[in-house]
Amino acid sequence: MGNILDGVKIAASIYADIKSRCGVLAKKGIVPGLATVLVGEDPASHVYVGQKIKQCGENGLSSIHKPLPATATEADVIRVVHELNRDPKVHGIIVQLPLPKGIDPEKVIIELDPAKDADGLHPFNQGMLVRLKSWKDICASGIPLPCTPAGIIQMLLFENIPVEGMTAVVVGRSTLVGKPVAQLLSSLNATVTMAHSYTKDLMKVCQSADILVAALGKPGFINKDGVKKGAVVIDVGITRSQNGLKGDVDFEHVKDLASWITPVPGGVGRMTVAMLLKNTVVAAEKMAS
Amino acid sequence: MGNILDGVKIAASIYADIKSRCGVLAKKGIVPGLATVLVGEDPASHVYVGQKIKQCGENGLSSIHKPLPATATEADVIRVVHELNRDPKVHGIIVQLPLPKGIDPEKVIIELDPAKDADGLHPFNQGMLVRLKSWKDICASGIPLPCTPAGIIQMLLFENIPVEGMTAVVVGRSTLVGKPVAQLLSSLNATVTMAHSYTKDLMKVCQSADILVAALGKPGFINKDGVKKGAVVIDVGITRSQNGLKGDVDFEHVKDLASWITPVPGGVGRMTVAMLLKNTVVAAEKMAS
Repeated sequence: MGNILDGVKIAASIYADIKSRCGVLAKKGIVPGLATVLVGEDPASHVYVGQKIKQCGENGLSSIHKPLPATATEADVIRVVHELNRDPKVHGIIVQLPLPKGIDPEKVIIELDPAKDADGLHPFNQGMLVRLKSWKDICASGIPLPCTPAGIIQMLLFENIPVEGMTAVVVGRSTLVGKPVAQLLSSLNATVTMAHSYTKDLMKVCQSADILVAALGKPGFINKDGVKKGAVVIDVGITRSQNGLKGDVDFEHVKDLASWITPVPGGVGRMTVAMLLKNTVVAAEKMAS
Repeated sequence: MGNILDGVKIAASIYADIKSRCGVLAKKGIVPGLATVLVGEDPASHVYVGQKIKQCGENGLSSIHKPLPATATEADVIRVVHELNRDPKVHGIIVQLPLPKGIDPEKVIIELDPAKDADGLHPFNQGMLVRLKSWKDICASGIPLPCTPAGIIQMLLFENIPVEGMTAVVVGRSTLVGKPVAQLLSSLNATVTMAHSYTKDLMKVCQSADILVAALGKPGFINKDGVKKGAVVIDVGITRSQNGLKGDVDFEHVKDLASWITPVPGGVGRMTVAMLLKNTVVAAEKMAS
């Protein structure tokens, strides 16, 4: 069986780094602040926001929670975003998605101060990923990175998995995961193929990958026909089923082929909140310098 | 021999559309204005800017030329950009690249009003290409598109060359061409591989392409070993040599394999200025509505 790319362990290393950096900032009288904007009563969203607030508390960040009723309008949400943009105690802002019907997330995201865009979703920041030439340049710029894609890169780097010159296939082209992780893998000099529902012979394309990122949201879709022996398999899918959380990869039938594989749960999902906090700390450091 | 993807003919169709749209705007008292910022005495840059101004004159746009001496500082250039951002007669601005040493193009580009970014290079606009889901959405948004990549898409659409489900390989990952053309081909549902100097077996990867875009700037680099029979070959390279302009594709040895192929000169290069003017007209229409 392949090695487990352990999200719990790798996230812990990120949290340790965050705590230490918060300690340095604290000596300057700075507490990185993450604001969470949550509209309505979606139970899963409440759980996610609760996890983010809890991690802030445990790692030296302050959290500023802004709940809004389900009846809030787009203008209400944007007004809160503008207030948080101006608040010097806030270094990162997330607007928890999905938003209730009638509120266009794109119109809200665009109103975030790009410097405080803790999810790395603002078009300015996604464009900077395109304009910056290498992973080194991206890190040096201090721009907030899309959290899940940055978490994936962190997992590869943590285990010293080679990326340069490797063939990477990303299945799924969401703005949240697929498209930005393709940019980041390319910035590390992988040859990246962006595959999706229109891709012909999808399993054959997947099988060409040294690094396979499955981010399509179809439980168990990637089976052993899609995995080359020795491939690194990153499973971004998290679908709730009667039997618990399911990834996009058929773990049981793929694990013996892969050299490294992320479990679900306990894999990529664990990285996202860690990277969100890291974006906030980096923003606080940048604003302090 | 494959069919010629004729940049002169296709650009002419774009210019005809521009003229007609300028006619409609003229009836509302609007003349789309393209501002050109040219720093220093680089002879090639003077030629390029001259071509842009000439095409404005021939197609119903006004041009506002802002030459600056080679001694101009970054702050001087940014000051001119800010003036043009505020000028209601200006709907598009280009800062001719390369800029003299000591002026960071990224710092200048970032100061452009994204709505007037006629080259489509501002991070906000490049990020919108990532955030928008389909070519249809991209067109409907009216954002300025990077000119050469948009010109390539226009050539494919003009000749009704199928893109959806096709395998596309883009060689070269510049912010000007490679990265945005990969996004645009993906938005049209091609399966896109971003190849580059670290790609292993580059010719084999190229040979897998139904649509091959060569944008690496190495004259004659793509030979017949890199082209599948029936492939569409788009040559973005333009290198000046003693024997005239040379593309990245060894045209003579590839032309019989390709189903469609762009010549150099007379291919992609002809599209760039046309798309620049189109961005300016679209911006004027958007500001008028």
